[in-house]
Amino acid sequence: MIDRLSNWGTVGLALAIFLSLLTMAAAGQDGGATQKATPQPKKLTYAIAIHGGAGSNPKRFSDAANKRRRNSLEKALRIGTEILKSGGTSLEAVEQVVLFLEDDPQFNAGKGAVFNAASSHELDASIMDGKTLECGAVAGVWTVKNPISLARMVMTETPHVLLAGSGAEAFATKMNVPRVKTSYFDTQSTLEAWKRVRAKMGDNGKLGEPNQILEIATGSYLGTVGCVALDQTGNLAAATSTGGMTNKQFGRVGDSPIVGAGTFADNRSCAVSCTGIGEQFIRNAVAFNVSAQMRFRGSTLDQSVQNVLQNELKPGDGGIIAVGHDGSISMRFNTSGMSRAAADSSGRFEVLWGNPSDSNKLP
Amino acid sequence: MIDRLSNWGTVGLALAIFLSLLTMAAAGQDGGATQKATPQPKKLTYAIAIHGGAGSNPKRFSDAANKRRRNSLEKALRIGTEILKSGGTSLEAVEQVVLFLEDDPQFNAGKGAVFNAASSHELDASIMDGKTLECGAVAGVWTVKNPISLARMVMTETPHVLLAGSGAEAFATKMNVPRVKTSYFDTQSTLEAWKRVRAKMGDNGKLGEPNQILEIATGSYLGTVGCVALDQTGNLAAATSTGGMTNKQFGRVGDSPIVGAGTFADNRSCAVSCTGIGEQFIRNAVAFNVSAQMRFRGSTLDQSVQNVLQNELKPGDGGIIAVGHDGSISMRFNTSGMSRAAADSSGRFEVLWGNPSDSNKLP
Repeated sequence: MIDRLSNWGTVGLALAIFLSLLTMAAAGQDGGATQKATPQPKKLTYAIAIHGGAGSNPKRFSDAANKRRRNSLEKALRIGTEILKSGGTSLEAVEQVVLFLEDDPQFNAGKGAVFNAASSHELDASIMDGKTLECGAVAGVWTVKNPISLARMVMTETPHVLLAGSGAEAFATKMNVPRVKTSYFDTQSTLEAWKRVRAKMGDNGKLGEPNQILEIATGSYLGTVGCVALDQTGNLAAATSTGGMTNKQFGRVGDSPIVGAGTFADNRSCAVSCTGIGEQFIRNAVAFNVSAQMRFRGSTLDQSVQNVLQNELKPGDGGIIAVGHDGSISMRFNTSGMSRAAADSSGRFEVLWGNPSDSNKLP
Repeated sequence: MIDRLSNWGTVGLALAIFLSLLTMAAAGQDGGATQKATPQPKKLTYAIAIHGGAGSNPKRFSDAANKRRRNSLEKALRIGTEILKSGGTSLEAVEQVVLFLEDDPQFNAGKGAVFNAASSHELDASIMDGKTLECGAVAGVWTVKNPISLARMVMTETPHVLLAGSGAEAFATKMNVPRVKTSYFDTQSTLEAWKRVRAKMGDNGKLGEPNQILEIATGSYLGTVGCVALDQTGNLAAATSTGGMTNKQFGRVGDSPIVGAGTFADNRSCAVSCTGIGEQFIRNAVAFNVSAQMRFRGSTLDQSVQNVLQNELKPGDGGIIAVGHDGSISMRFNTSGMSRAAADSSGRFEVLWGNPSDSNKLP
C-alpha cells in the first residue's frame, strides 16, 4: 500500500514535468531564444514601429543625406507617439505617420515615388484595422497626393478592399481628396536611379530575378514606408505606402497595396508592414504569414518575423516591421539595411538603420 | 531496489502516454474526425478539383439550366483529367480547364462576366505553380478574351506577379493575345442580375455588408471559376478567374487575382482556389490560410479548409476547393451551394452542387 502511494507520487512528478513541457511547446519552440533576442517590457500601453524602406547600406550615402533621412524618421516617430500617448487610435497613428512620410521626397512614397517603365509614377497604399480586419487599399494611382488617406476611404466609404488604376482615380475625384500633377512626384534622385536601371534592363525587359532590380537600383534609397502601432485600447493597425519598384512595368502592382502580403493587422496576433521585392512578399503572403506563425504555430512575434525572413524569403528580399498585441516590436531584414524607428510607453524611442548587430550606431 | 525498478516502470508508462499525446497534438486536433470525413485513397498519381462558383441553390434554377451547367463542368473535368492522365503538368491542366470555363457564358469569368457599376466588365485572374511559387495575375482587364492565359504570361514573361488595368491591357497588346470588344462579355442573365442589384444599392452606394451584394444577386449564378490539380510528377497548381461581383465599383479588385487570397499553390502543402465575397477572402488571406494551417498547425487538408470556413470566414462568404500534395481533395462552402467537380487516378469522377450532405444528388 505504501509502495503504491510512492509509485503514484513518482507518476505525479512525471505528470508535472510533461505538462510543463507541453506548456513550453505551446509557447513556441524557440520561445527562450526569442526572449533573449528581444527582452519584453512588463506592461506596455502603446507601441509603434516605422520603416522607411529596406535597401542600401547607409555607408553608401553622404552623412548629410543620412542625417536628413534620420531626422525625418525621428519626426515621423514623434507624430505617431504623440497620437498614441494622447489616447488616439492606432489607425490614426499609422495613417498620420505614413502621410507625413509620403510628403517627404526622401522616401519612395507620395512625393519621391520612383519612376515606372513609362517614365511616370503609379502609387500603391493600404491600411488595416486589427480590431475588425476592415482594410482598404489603392493601387496604381497617379494624381493622388496621399494614397494612404484614399486607402482609408476605400475601407470606410466602400464595401470593397482594393481599388486600382482609373477606378481608384475616379474614387479620388468622388472623395474630393487633394490631387497633384503626376510630375509633382518627380525628384532628381529617383530620375537618376531610373536611368541607371533602364541602362541595364531596358524597357519592360524580362529579368531572370526581380532581385536584379534591387541590385541595379542600389545607390538610391528603396524607401517604401510603413507603420504599425498598438494603441491604449489594445487595438493594432498597420499601413504601407510606396511608389513601387524603379522601372516597374506599367500597371505592375506590388505587395504594398495587398492586404496579407505587404500589410496585415489582427488583434489576435500582430500588425505587420513590409518592404522589399514586392513579388516575393506576395508569393509568400508575408504579412499574413507572420500572423499565421503566431496563431497556428505558437511562435513569438520576433520568432515569426525571423522564420519568414530566413525560411520563406531569400537573402536580399527585404524587411519586416511588426508589433504584437502585447506591445513587443520586431524590426528585421535580410538586406544590407533598413531605415526604421520604434517607440513605446516604456520610454523607448530610437531611430535605426544598419544590421541589428550594429543597429545602435545611428547614421 | 525492486521497488525502485517498479517505480521507474510506472514512470515509463506515464512517459509513453504523454509522448503519444504529444504526437496526437502535432498531428492536428481533429485529425481523427477528418479521416472519417474524407477517407484518403492509398496512392494517387494525379487529382483535380474544379469550382464553378459558390452561391445559389440549384433548386432556384430550371432543370434545363442546371443540366447545361452540369454538362459544362463535366466537360471541364474531362479536359483536365485527360491532360493529367497523359502526363501533362498541373499548370497546363488548371489553365486549360479555366480557359474552357471562361469561354462558357454560364460562368462569371470571361464570356458571361458580370457587369460592374459602370455597366461594363472588368475581369480578374491568377495562376500559381506550387513547385516554384512562381505566379501571375491580371486585374481589371476589359478586352482580353482569356484573362487566365494573360495571367500565365505575367508569370513567364515579366519579373512581376500582378498587372492591373491599362497596364495589363498594354501587356495584352505586347503579348498579342486574343482580344474582344467589351460587349462580347455581355449576357442577358448578368444584365438582369445587375439591374436587380442596382435597384437596391444604386450607383457605387456604400453597403453595410458586402454580403448584401451576394444576397441581392441571389437568383443569378455567382460563377467565379477555379481549378486545382496535382500532376504525376507531384507538382501542384491553382488557377482562378472571375468577372468579380455584380455592380462592383469601377476599379474594384477582388480576391481572384490576389495570390494568397483567391489562389495559392505550394508543393509543401496544397493548391487552393476560392469563390465568394472577395473582400472577406482578402481580409483573411484565405488561400494561403489553408496552406498555413497545414504547414504551421499540422492540420489535414480537409480540416484546414473547414477551419477557415467555420472559424475565419462568416456564413455566406463563399467556398474553397483544394488538393493536397497527397492527392486528397477538399471542396467545402458556407453558402447554399457550390457547383464543383473532382476526379483522381483512383477513378473518382464526379460533378456536385448542393450541400455535402446531399452532394451526390446531382442537379
